[in-house]
This record gives sequence, structure tokens and C-alpha cells, in this order.
Amino acid sequence: MSKTSAGHFFEDFELGQILRHATPRTVTTGDTALYTALYGARFAVNSSDDFAFGLNHPKAPVDDLLAFHIVFGKTVPDISLNAVANLGYADGRFLKPVYPGDTLSAVSEVIGLKENSSGKTGAVYVRTTGCKPDGEAVLTYARWVMVNKRDPGARPKGEKVPDLPDRVDPSLIGAACPGFVAERYDDALAGSRHRFGDYQIGEKIDHVDGMTVEEAEHQLATRLYQNTAKVHFDQMLQKDSRFGRRLIYGGHVISLARALSFNGLANAFHIAAINGGRHVAPLFAGGTVYAWSEILEKADVPNRNDVGALRIRMVAAKDKPCGDFPYKDEKGAYDPAVILDFDYWALMPR
Amino acid sequence: MSKTSAGHFFEDFELGQILRHATPRTVTTGDTALYTALYGARFAVNSSDDFAFGLNHPKAPVDDLLAFHIVFGKTVPDISLNAVANLGYADGRFLKPVYPGDTLSAVSEVIGLKENSSGKTGAVYVRTTGCKPDGEAVLTYARWVMVNKRDPGARPKGEKVPDLPDRVDPSLIGAACPGFVAERYDDALAGSRHRFGDYQIGEKIDHVDGMTVEEAEHQLATRLYQNTAKVHFDQMLQKDSRFGRRLIYGGHVISLARALSFNGLANAFHIAAINGGRHVAPLFAGGTVYAWSEILEKADVPNRNDVGALRIRMVAAKDKPCGDFPYKDEKGAYDPAVILDFDYWALMPR
Amino acid sequence: MSKTSAGHFFEDFELGQILRHATPRTVTTGDTALYTALYGARFAVNSSDDFAFGLNHPKAPVDDLLAFHIVFGKTVPDISLNAVANLGYADGRFLKPVYPGDTLSAVSEVIGLKENSSGKTGAVYVRTTGCKPDGEAVLTYARWVMVNKRDPGARPKGEKVPDLPDRVDPSLIGAACPGFVAERYDDALAGSRHRFGDYQIGEKIDHVDGMTVEEAEHQLATRLYQNTAKVHFDQMLQKDSRFGRRLIYGGHVISLARALSFNGLANAFHIAAINGGRHVAPLFAGGTVYAWSEILEKADVPNRNDVGALRIRMVAAKDKPCGDFPYKDEKGAYDPAVILDFDYWALMPR
Repeated sequence: MSKTSAGHFFEDFELGQILRHATPRTVTTGDTALYTALYGARFAVNSSDDFAFGLNHPKAPVDDLLAFHIVFGKTVPDISLNAVANLGYADGRFLKPVYPGDTLSAVSEVIGLKENSSGKTGAVYVRTTGCKPDGEAVLTYARWVMVNKRDPGARPKGEKVPDLPDRVDPSLIGAACPGFVAERYDDALAGSRHRFGDYQIGEKIDHVDGMTVEEAEHQLATRLYQNTAKVHFDQMLQKDSRFGRRLIYGGHVISLARALSFNGLANAFHIAAINGGRHVAPLFAGGTVYAWSEILEKADVPNRNDVGALRIRMVAAKDKPCGDFPYKDEKGAYDPAVILDFDYWALMPR
Repeated sequence: MSKTSAGHFFEDFELGQILRHATPRTVTTGDTALYTALYGARFAVNSSDDFAFGLNHPKAPVDDLLAFHIVFGKTVPDISLNAVANLGYADGRFLKPVYPGDTLSAVSEVIGLKENSSGKTGAVYVRTTGCKPDGEAVLTYARWVMVNKRDPGARPKGEKVPDLPDRVDPSLIGAACPGFVAERYDDALAGSRHRFGDYQIGEKIDHVDGMTVEEAEHQLATRLYQNTAKVHFDQMLQKDSRFGRRLIYGGHVISLARALSFNGLANAFHIAAINGGRHVAPLFAGGTVYAWSEILEKADVPNRNDVGALRIRMVAAKDKPCGDFPYKDEKGAYDPAVILDFDYWALMPR
Repeated sequence: MSKTSAGHFFEDFELGQILRHATPRTVTTGDTALYTALYGARFAVNSSDDFAFGLNHPKAPVDDLLAFHIVFGKTVPDISLNAVANLGYADGRFLKPVYPGDTLSAVSEVIGLKENSSGKTGAVYVRTTGCKPDGEAVLTYARWVMVNKRDPGARPKGEKVPDLPDRVDPSLIGAACPGFVAERYDDALAGSRHRFGDYQIGEKIDHVDGMTVEEAEHQLATRLYQNTAKVHFDQMLQKDSRFGRRLIYGGHVISLARALSFNGLANAFHIAAINGGRHVAPLFAGGTVYAWSEILEKADVPNRNDVGALRIRMVAAKDKPCGDFPYKDEKGAYDPAVILDFDYWALMPR
């Protein structure tokens, strides 16, 4: 019997199935240093223990997306090794801060299955939760991917399209942010004097800077997350693919855009929820990533008068500065430069 | 008098000579994060403090090969700066686990010298030991290299070919692995349900995945190990060499193959000994590394009923997937794709 | 009002203005591991806690240049985002050792302004100080850059060319080095038997080795320092520049040359002061860096009989080994290979 895992195919998944994923990971300051080196993130709360003390953290929490990528990476060998497309995310919530020293593992439940009309593939919906060893959840999200069948004649083990929210209700967010006194927050160290009240719904912000990505960079990042998807690493395999090249992990683009968004959103210090995300087009090494943001919504956070929540659309574009906010045309088709359309809730001091 | 070291030439080595190597190194979680980013290793015991507690470690030990590379790197300026070939390894044993916070230094003894018939070079055999500051040895190995003479007329200081074992006797292994209760070992977190009893002598495992290597990656790795061999870093020098390119440190290939071998050997959680290793052909940036393994032998570990030892041949190939296990032809010549032939003992829970 | 910072232009600076820079940073062993991986530095005091204990450090201090780059990086968004040239450094002094766990922030004072005759640009002189959260200074330096005007008709807010020393007086150096007993210093572990007394004024040392730089490497480094200068990262922007390529952060070259200088100056374990530095020519990815040093001066350090100070000129050259010490011709023009001319004080055990 083969010792090597070929991953799960569509007919291997069963509605309600629980998958405990391999390789728990103790997050360290080594990971946070690498995260800084990979993206150049400058949010003060993740960079400085001392700044984090002022926000009632015991030390600097790791970047929310670092925790997300580490949890996500564990799911790849079980969920998406045979995926042909990453269809979407929804209902992502950050439940506890993650600090260096915390150990994370991941568990997924199959919450939906839908065979495609071709009979060759199907959509698999999972709810993934990142946990500490005592079972305490630190983050959770739903994700759906299109997965190949091994045997086109196989029957799916259940059929259900789960009901997922269009956006996380703001009454559910903020759990991973300790209460703090906004007056103790130092705007100069944080990098901007613009706080919650200064942002308007509909406001668009060009983040100006661009970042060119190298093969070594995205490979280092994706391995750091112990994400094993072959398409990111194996040029021999990829040269015969329709792209002819290694694909960059979509999460790498999210982190690049988030780091670029510091210039304009420096006080959006915490990602509280991921409402949805779409990798509109692939990115390859040599491409330069730019980003812009739009404020979609503003909300109160339950029992918190120190922070408010901004719902932000973050768009990343490839090889095109974003001064004119490239997005969709009147027919709803994305500008060809757009590679990421990401919708999240961020907290900002009032 | 020159302040710059030109390294030792063949006639500088003396039988019995002790070389205390420079630059002790405190290993940190920064090193382990980089190791993960460089190779994508997923062995749970090195990734999670909590998993390591279950194996009676006080925290996650560093990857055995990270400790090996750090010790090896220190020897380069004294042993192999003028080497023209790395001839072999033998009798490598891991004696104590290495944890973040441990400081390692290296000492080598010249255990053999053999002038070549050309009179221009000679083989130098050393026994290198990696130690903590109190002198406690953490690993030891023999290595032999072919070293240039400065002066072709110089006489060697001794002649001896040391008697080195073909393989480490299993009665000598296991010292760096604390005793643990195999039942506490969580197969789901470890990544495989296949334990010691499931592997058969002669069984071959294709590790399936491939990893394309970039210049920046192997340079970062080799500098992390403070290995100064010019051939890895200096393109100006290398462009006039017979390869025309920078050579990738052979240890980088060993670590890549070991990380790939997780898929099929996830429970082979500890390298207990290195029986031998041969860098069959060089690797250059842009090459894609694949690997396969063969179980050569199974053995008990002295006084241990929790783990067994697998003797494994790990073969790495360049730009060629390993589904057909490329190795040697009937005349004993390696398949042109093979770049590494590595023989080691791994421990696995029973 | 724009939320995005476009940086300061010449007319925005005011004599005496204090700029508190964003993003405090807790330095960690993750940063030190990356620093090692980026440059291959081998100075024992920065590599080993145990070696550092012997020098009366509580643990290994971070490389002096790592602390410098982290402080420098913070100033970029406020000082040099619109700079067209980095004109010089002076009076750099290291005041306290920086250890993993220390948090650094940066404050700059505008100490000089001088409009250029063209009226389109002006020189801005700043004194930057890196501090811990309690305000204790760890390093300080003066720097001047040529900055664009937004409006050519704008008037400068003051005019002054500050009086900066040609070199730091040795009576002012040594504060970041604890007293230690030089006899406890282990030359074998440090990597050289050559101590202070062995170096002569006028002595030149070729550091022999070369290091080829990749795009991913300098980008990782520069992001690690949270330095946001676009010219290092944005190939889309740079392809239309006069170079057509990304420029490598000048500090990356300083660190490479310093790491190479270990071979010949292994006991120059601490940079005590930066007298001046000039980035003579740009470096691009693919270039190979070599270095040589000249001993310019020897000095006592106040109240210290354990160490002496060497004033060193460190020269880096591109794609040219330094056996013939490339520098300036008889007219004072630099050899075309020279990219860095750096003048510093190093401490060395007597």
C-alpha cells in the first residue's frame, strides 16, 4: 500500500467529515521576522512589544495574516492538493490574538459538496478552524475549492451548498483585540494621524507603492506556511501547464497588498474578519503588485468605544499603479490588471 | 604577514592535528523559522513545542540537519577552502538533541592523510564533533575531502587511511531521542498512520513532489550555516570554472530531499545516524529536486521498545520525477539525473 | 484630504524641526538569524551568547549594522522618500549595545538646510537618534540628502550648513562595548590570532571573498529594516529610470563588505563609530561584491586597556577582486569598480 499521500479527490470527501490536519506549529519571533522581511509590513502593534503593551497585549501579536497563512497551509495536503481552482472565502473571523510561543493546528469540517455538471469535478466547502493545543480557537473561515474526481463515475457522499454570509456581521467581530484606551495610542509611532472618524464610506485610497516579487520570495513564504501545493514550487511540472510558470500563492498577494496599504491605512491595525476574497488572476514572479482600498462600510464594535470597524475592499493590481483605482467595467468584468478583490473588516482607533 | 586566511593546503594538515573552528553559534527560533522557509520541512517534532513535549522533549528540538549544517559550516574555512572534491561522509551520529538557545562550536581531528599519485592533491580525513560550551558533544561525523597542495613538492605529514564503518551499528544510535510512549504519539498531527511495523525491507517510496531551487535560496541557507565556500557565492569566480555557475551546497540538497521525504516517511521523525553520503552530481539554481527512498534495513534500538530504526537510502534527482526510482544501471553507473545518494538511520515510532 | 503620505519635500523641512518616525520595532533573534542568512557574518560576539558572556554582555548583542539599518529604515518615509541623492553620513556613534528583545524607535532633528543653485532641490541635514522606549539613545548619526522641491518657487525654512566632524574623536567612542578582560577572549573561536597590536597604520587587507547579490536578497533585507524607498522594490517604476533596474540599498553593501572583512579583521568585533560613508556607485542584482580595508589610524579608547580602536577605510568594489586595492586615481577619481568608501572606528582586543 502506498505510503505517499496523493491527497483527497472529490469523492473522498463526505458531508460532516472532520479532517484533523498534520503538523502543528509553534509560531515564533523567527516567523515574525521573516514575515517582515517578506512583506515589509509596518503596523506598529505587530512590530513592537512596547507599542503592543499600550494596547493591552502582553507582547506584540503576530500579523493576523501570518496566523491565517499558517492555518491555511496545514489544510492544503488534505483539502486542495487536487484542487483545480480556489473558488472563494467567507465568514473568516479572528477570535484570539496569536503571540510568538503559541502553537497552532488546524481542523476542517466538510460543510458542503456540489458535483459539477461535467461530472469530472466538484465543489468542496470546508469550515477550517485554527486552534491552540487546548482546543481554543484562534481563527475560523469557510473556503470552497473545485476538486478533481479520481473516478468520474464515483458518486458524491452528500450534496449541500452551505449558506454563507455575504459579509461577517460586525456584531461578531473584535474578539482578537484587547480593549485599550485610544488616547494612549501614539499616532506618530503608528504612522498616521487619521483615525476612524476621518474615513468616509466610499472613500478610495491609492496605496501608491509597488512591490516586485521574486521566485525565491514567494517560495520562502509559502514554505514558511508549510503549504505544499506543487504549483508554487515545481517548475518542471509547471512548464507544461497552461501558464508555463510557477503560480504565486494567493495569500502572498493578500499579504503584499495589506503591507502596501499601510500607506493610507496605518491605523487599521487589526484585521478582525475576512468577508470574502477572490484571486481574480494569477501572479507570477517578476510581476509588480500595487494596491488600492475603498471604504465600504463603517460600524461600531460591540461594547467597544475605543475602536470602530471599517469594512474595506482591498484591490491588488499587477504591473499597474492604482491611481485610477482599476476594478470592474460597466459589465462587471475585472480590469485585466486586477489580481485580487478582497473584502475585510479592520479595526481602527476612534 | 597576511591577516587573511587562505585556508589549509594538503601539506598543512598533520595526522592527529586538532582544529578548533571559529564562530560559535547560538541556535535560535530564528534559525528554525528560516529552515522551515528554506525547505518546507513538516516533521511535527521540530515544528511544535507541544508535540515535542509529548516525546519528552522540553521544547521542539531543531531539525537534525540544521544542527549538522551549522557544525559543518564552521569546518569549511579550516578544512575545505582549498578542497577540489568532497569525497564522502561516514559514521555520523547524533548524540544529543539541539534546542533553540544551545550554543554550538566545532572541533575536528585529522584522522587520515593520503597523497594522490599525481602529487598535486591529497585526501584529508577528519572527524568533526559539534559541541556545546561545556564540551558536551551533540553530533560527530567523519568526512574526507580532496585538498590541493600549495607546493607540489611538499611532503605529507603522515599517511593513514582510517578504518571507517560502512554503516553505523544500530547499537550506537538513538542517543538524541528521549524515550517516549509511542501511544501518546498522534498520527494525525504527525501526518501519517504508517509506523515502524508498516515498512518492509526493500520497499521503495517515491516522494512525488518537486522543488525548484533559486540562487537566493541556497545562498541564504549556506550563509545561515556560516559556510564560506566561495563556489556557492561568487559568480565572478564561478563563471570561469568548468561549470560556469555557482554550485549549490550539497547539504542544501540533503535538506530538500529530507523535507520532500515527509510525504511517505512522515513518522521518520529523527535522523539518528548518517551512514554515508555521496554528492553524485552538482545542482545549480533553476534545477528541480525530486527524491525517493528505499528501506535498506530495520533494526531495534538498544533498550527502546517505543521506536525502531529504519536504514534508508535517500536518492535525490534533478529535473526528473522519481516514479521509476532512478539510481544505477547494471554497470553501477548512476542515472544522469541522480545528484545525491544518502544512507541514514531514522527512528520511527513502533 | 489624502490619507497617503507623499513624503516631505525640501520646503516642508524646517531648521530645528523634530520628526518622530513611525513603527517602533522590537529586535528579535529572528532578525539576527535573517541577518546571518543575508550576509554570512561570522563575528563571534554577535553569533554566540556564550562568547558574548565572556565579554560581559548578558547575551549576544545584535550586529551593530543591523541596529543601524533598523533605525535608518524608519527615517526613510519622512526624510528621503523624495530624495534624489544620498549625500553623506557623519558623526555616527554607537552608544549602547542592542540585544534581542530591545525595542527601537527613531527621532530626527533637521540640523541643516541649503537650497541648491538650481532652485529645484536642496540639501537636508538631519541628526537621527535610535532610542529605546524609555528614551535611552542606542545610536546617533548625521546624514544629508538632496531632496526635491514640490514647488520650485517655495522658499526654504531656514538656511544652515552644520559643522560636522571629519571623523569621530576617539575620546567619544566605546560606549556600546562593556569592559572585558582581553585574556578571556578566545582567538580560536573568534577566528584570528591577530589583535590590536598586530595592525599597522597604512596596512591594507584584501578580504579575498566575493558575494553575488540577488534581487530577492536585497529586497528581503531592505524590507526587514522596514525601509520603504521605492527604488529598491518597484521594477515597474525603475525600468523607466536612468538605471532601468532596482537599486540596492546602500546599507546592504555596507553589511556585505563588513561580513567579508571578517577574513582579515575577525577580531574587529564591534563598530564603535561611523566617521563617514559614500555610496560611490550603485549596485544592482547580479553584481559581485568584493572588499578591502586600510588601517587609517590607531587610538586608545578612554579608560580602556582591554581594547584599542582601529580607524578603518572599508572599500567595496563591484565585479572586481580587490587584490590590487582599487580606490582613486591620481586626480582623485574613483576606480570605476568602487561602489563604497566607508570610514569607521572598530574596537579590537589588545
